[in-house]
Amino acid sequence: MSGSTLGELFRVTNFGESHGPAIGCVIDGCPPGLALSEADIQPELDRRRPGTSRHVTQRQEADRVQILSGVYEGRTTGTPIALLIPNTDQRSKDYGNLLDTFRPGHADYAYWRKYGIRDPRGGGRSSARTTAPTVAAGAVARKWLRERLGCTFTGWMSALGEIEIPFEDEEHIAANDFFAANTSDIPRLEAFMDALRKAGDSCGARIEVRARGVPAGLGEPLYDRLDADIAHAMMGLNAVKGVEIGAGFACVAQRGSVHGDELTPEGFASNHAGGVLGGISTGQELVVRLAIKPTSSIRIARASIDRAGQPTTVETHGRHDPCVGIRATPIAEALLALVVMDHVLRQRAQCGDVELPIPAIPAARPAGA
Amino acid sequence: MSGSTLGELFRVTNFGESHGPAIGCVIDGCPPGLALSEADIQPELDRRRPGTSRHVTQRQEADRVQILSGVYEGRTTGTPIALLIPNTDQRSKDYGNLLDTFRPGHADYAYWRKYGIRDPRGGGRSSARTTAPTVAAGAVARKWLRERLGCTFTGWMSALGEIEIPFEDEEHIAANDFFAANTSDIPRLEAFMDALRKAGDSCGARIEVRARGVPAGLGEPLYDRLDADIAHAMMGLNAVKGVEIGAGFACVAQRGSVHGDELTPEGFASNHAGGVLGGISTGQELVVRLAIKPTSSIRIARASIDRAGQPTTVETHGRHDPCVGIRATPIAEALLALVVMDHVLRQRAQCGDVELPIPAIPAARPAGA
Amino acid sequence: MSGSTLGELFRVTNFGESHGPAIGCVIDGCPPGLALSEADIQPELDRRRPGTSRHVTQRQEADRVQILSGVYEGRTTGTPIALLIPNTDQRSKDYGNLLDTFRPGHADYAYWRKYGIRDPRGGGRSSARTTAPTVAAGAVARKWLRERLGCTFTGWMSALGEIEIPFEDEEHIAANDFFAANTSDIPRLEAFMDALRKAGDSCGARIEVRARGVPAGLGEPLYDRLDADIAHAMMGLNAVKGVEIGAGFACVAQRGSVHGDELTPEGFASNHAGGVLGGISTGQELVVRLAIKPTSSIRIARASIDRAGQPTTVETHGRHDPCVGIRATPIAEALLALVVMDHVLRQRAQCGDVELPIPAIPAARPAGA
Amino acid sequence: MSGSTLGELFRVTNFGESHGPAIGCVIDGCPPGLALSEADIQPELDRRRPGTSRHVTQRQEADRVQILSGVYEGRTTGTPIALLIPNTDQRSKDYGNLLDTFRPGHADYAYWRKYGIRDPRGGGRSSARTTAPTVAAGAVARKWLRERLGCTFTGWMSALGEIEIPFEDEEHIAANDFFAANTSDIPRLEAFMDALRKAGDSCGARIEVRARGVPAGLGEPLYDRLDADIAHAMMGLNAVKGVEIGAGFACVAQRGSVHGDELTPEGFASNHAGGVLGGISTGQELVVRLAIKPTSSIRIARASIDRAGQPTTVETHGRHDPCVGIRATPIAEALLALVVMDHVLRQRAQCGDVELPIPAIPAARPAGA
Repeated sequence: MSGSTLGELFRVTNFGESHGPAIGCVIDGCPPGLALSEADIQPELDRRRPGTSRHVTQRQEADRVQILSGVYEGRTTGTPIALLIPNTDQRSKDYGNLLDTFRPGHADYAYWRKYGIRDPRGGGRSSARTTAPTVAAGAVARKWLRERLGCTFTGWMSALGEIEIPFEDEEHIAANDFFAANTSDIPRLEAFMDALRKAGDSCGARIEVRARGVPAGLGEPLYDRLDADIAHAMMGLNAVKGVEIGAGFACVAQRGSVHGDELTPEGFASNHAGGVLGGISTGQELVVRLAIKPTSSIRIARASIDRAGQPTTVETHGRHDPCVGIRATPIAEALLALVVMDHVLRQRAQCGDVELPIPAIPAARPAGA
Repeated sequence: MSGSTLGELFRVTNFGESHGPAIGCVIDGCPPGLALSEADIQPELDRRRPGTSRHVTQRQEADRVQILSGVYEGRTTGTPIALLIPNTDQRSKDYGNLLDTFRPGHADYAYWRKYGIRDPRGGGRSSARTTAPTVAAGAVARKWLRERLGCTFTGWMSALGEIEIPFEDEEHIAANDFFAANTSDIPRLEAFMDALRKAGDSCGARIEVRARGVPAGLGEPLYDRLDADIAHAMMGLNAVKGVEIGAGFACVAQRGSVHGDELTPEGFASNHAGGVLGGISTGQELVVRLAIKPTSSIRIARASIDRAGQPTTVETHGRHDPCVGIRATPIAEALLALVVMDHVLRQRAQCGDVELPIPAIPAARPAGA
Repeated sequence: MSGSTLGELFRVTNFGESHGPAIGCVIDGCPPGLALSEADIQPELDRRRPGTSRHVTQRQEADRVQILSGVYEGRTTGTPIALLIPNTDQRSKDYGNLLDTFRPGHADYAYWRKYGIRDPRGGGRSSARTTAPTVAAGAVARKWLRERLGCTFTGWMSALGEIEIPFEDEEHIAANDFFAANTSDIPRLEAFMDALRKAGDSCGARIEVRARGVPAGLGEPLYDRLDADIAHAMMGLNAVKGVEIGAGFACVAQRGSVHGDELTPEGFASNHAGGVLGGISTGQELVVRLAIKPTSSIRIARASIDRAGQPTTVETHGRHDPCVGIRATPIAEALLALVVMDHVLRQRAQCGDVELPIPAIPAARPAGA
Repeated sequence: MSGSTLGELFRVTNFGESHGPAIGCVIDGCPPGLALSEADIQPELDRRRPGTSRHVTQRQEADRVQILSGVYEGRTTGTPIALLIPNTDQRSKDYGNLLDTFRPGHADYAYWRKYGIRDPRGGGRSSARTTAPTVAAGAVARKWLRERLGCTFTGWMSALGEIEIPFEDEEHIAANDFFAANTSDIPRLEAFMDALRKAGDSCGARIEVRARGVPAGLGEPLYDRLDADIAHAMMGLNAVKGVEIGAGFACVAQRGSVHGDELTPEGFASNHAGGVLGGISTGQELVVRLAIKPTSSIRIARASIDRAGQPTTVETHGRHDPCVGIRATPIAEALLALVVMDHVLRQRAQCGDVELPIPAIPAARPAGA
């Protein structure tokens, strides 16, 4: 069971390897009537695209998306939407020397143990390239959620390696190469990355994603909680080693008298819950943070074994991201949108006729951020 | 879509409310031939049971499990195993005063927004009581995994509120009321809890869970990664606000040259990956940590609103856990076992005939822990 | 993967064997707010119950259903509804002599090949008894569909062995032991059954089920068509060997100029489609027919083998239905209701905001029936 | 929920419309290590392809399949296999006159009621063209099943309109335009089709499919029975109105003493069960029959309504199959293979370690056929 489908009602089935002819996905379950063209999807792909600054992999990929089905006269029909993204810059020779060894921290060993197969071409299915179809599918969900519910998704980098990046303003996010909501510290981040690249090493990052305008009532009480499905989607992204919602790991040291967000007629007074209580959205902002590990493909030599189990050393050349976290922000936004979209449809199915006695309390803007 | 089923091939469907006649679950997909009786399940339930020390809720529940189906002459038949746990100590009157208000940090507001219904009895479906069937199902998975693969699951509390609990030895876990792998700090934990209870407040906790003997090759490359499904299961547990694998959030500040676990003919030299690379198990220990928030039901008065949207204050009396994290360890172990079990069956389905050229490298024991 | 769940959004997970302590099911995904008590379910179980006439098995089962969860103050909460039906009349000794042989036409051989296990007690999981929870779940779906959409389900027996039973009036269905929409031929059916029972043989039957008031638009274009899911549900019922919709197998010899139902402003002029076009409901009556095979448990001696593969003969005594088709009508109605219910929720999820330019054409009443 | 995925463990997600740029599917869950290239798939597509004789639609489609992913150095990797089939002969103008009316017997009315959209281009998603990806996916399953288990699938037409086609020999199937296992009656079938085409009418057909070498033990006892999943797959094929297994509807008039297949040390003495008992395969041949309705697109004028609900008449010109049943045989074979493949993986997951005390009895060849 290959498990390449995300979602229950808004289902995204992902396919493709980094070095095959194309990658893509099929979206099954999109409501009919949404105005949709490639122009709605391409900008999100462009945000994730490699080769846009010196801090990311220099692989050149146009990442041009084609809609193959599910759209007629500019609107979705309700039938499966197939999205295709041709690969244009495969240089398999770059990886030739890795055929017989395993990279420390890389998936190649685990794949080989699972499938009995080595596919050294760019990591095959474990490549960050497979996140492009996720971003494309997310763009469809985002458009529907924005137009129908006014729901929006915004992410930023909040730490690069050991450097904390203070939140200044969301306006800055699009103005730097790091998706930082910050302008003061950009030179420092650039210097850090230049030194890292020179050292042939890599570093981790922390990403924060928010969703605004999410209706209350999404998520199921047990197992398929909204936060559980968010955690599944985020931890399903390459290189993610931790996920937290709202106060996250900081809640361990909090008292109940502090953590529990008080309610007022004007809205919640705080948002330690991160927009989810009992697994169900409250109408507040969803607040999610991800820990992204350092890339395993580095130039520094490391101890490893070959396929015969003999000791060897490995150093990885070729075109790699020294910090995959840099391009992770649009992917995390897309994943959050896909989970919300799925639960909007789930909620509509089961509780489509629930009538509430009073309007919801307004969602208070969290003090922080 | 109510989402009360965990797993794809070893499927656990959970039912019941804290104050109805019974709770339970149906396990669908258990392999035939496993020796199984109530005596295999009851000890795990007893570990999670309320009322066993002064530090947890004083609700008295025998939590006696009955096997209703799927077992014939002491062995599983391969058909659904229904497990029933009657509720014996429901005191709904304790909750009468909460009917018209919302508890800060509690799921009651979110449920009401989702379903248009208030069920004030002990939180209904959001009660920690609904984790008992999960523990029961986990006991079945654990037995199969132990007998067939030698796979074991061990958890402990690593922080209680702001108190870090140093790992001393796993032997201590069963010898204190906190599931701490520690004996030196127990008096300090007890004093902390006594003061907290006296103050009418609650606190968070951090739990660590390990799985040993997990075969390499479990998990899918994209979306349904092993770590993604672990994150889903753990974040699906009441009160969990964060999940991390291996180095977790600490990987943000790590360099690739440190984080990537080197391979030697004797095994991995470290385990920053926490046993998962590219979403697939490596054969090393699975290392998972959870952040559990403080209980929302506290005696300290807090600002809230009533169902008409008017301001009010809420204080919660009745029998509640001042730290739900105390009883979370056996639940987290059960959840990890359920995810591993599911992926063992998934791997067997898809890769049942994969033959590996050489034996796996041995799983190195991590230095820490 | 044990496959004991029916439906995607209104999910029924069935458990239990004929000779264990209880059978039952969990309904996950029922919308909240439906008034529900045991009294809504019991009448449907009573229609299916054994021991009600001399033409069915003489096993005495009260089939009293208990609601364990998911209902609060008389209304569904939206959380899982567990239904329990205790077994009260298990006489395992009746089956003792079948332990080592296989009954021709019975599932025992296939089960043994699948699971490596013989459970001779009443066929274990293959017993018709496992259909009781399906009927109970169907009663919940029927109530919701009737109250919300005015949708009703009616079935009758249209052939008993080689005897065709002309449709006279639906009023007769409840007035005879065969669920025949007929009063003139009942004495003939009774004589036929008496002779059959005396001969120690069994016979097949054909059942017809109709659903009225089904909204147009249910079902998916490909794979999960409404008729495909109906076929799955019906063929999933014990002893069913054929399913047809509308004209069914008769369409083979029809011309397109006859088969295609003409549309008029007053509605469709005929219903050869049986209410489904392109896998999607048209708003006409759903028309489904099932072929039910003769029971395998007969007194007449037949050739078989034992578990060592040696030739033997088998004759089955004990309490068996000489025609399982007699009790199949309420089960088939329940299954049709469950499929329609599931697709109503699916349609609401995906197309909940579709607005039609004109009202639907009225559903013409088919000439026949 | 669009429902375009077939299978649980060998999952085929279908996309595309008859008049878009391409159709295709993603196969998720194929075991790794299967030798696979386009040349393994193309022959099956060629069998289904339009334009190969005067008796089918004259649309010219090369139906050239491309493998986009999941295969490396000629072997499947275990990751998703995306198959793409470009459309090359779309003539949307042929359908211009159908924009505002509904064809009797066609899905256009139901689609419009479901989605609020008219896509007149060749029926969009309801076109028989969407079966091509199913055939392509089936070819992958067939190859694996043949190589690993020796399992084969053969279908033929057993009735064309009112003409019964006697089974003579499977060798004839490939030698005529009808997939008839017959050579004597071909001139009669050709004359029948010529007259039908001249009359501008269409007719139905009956197809029989067999699977040989299917292991015993496939299928689940309840709901997801093997025959239930076969019925789902077959009824999910365009134009199918009936499905039967083994004796099928003929079992209604059979006695238990005749229907139940006796067992002998040499195998079953007959195969009225059609290879399935209690929903589980017995190791005998699977025997399935389908009723296929006459095409709705005919030249004969018929009464209908337009989108404003006003009466009108419709006659369909353009390129249509006068009997869609003619090309249905390879599709039915593919569907049967997909269901068997899925259940082989399911069985391997749950019962992968079941050991049988004695070998299976041999599968007797049915007297008929």
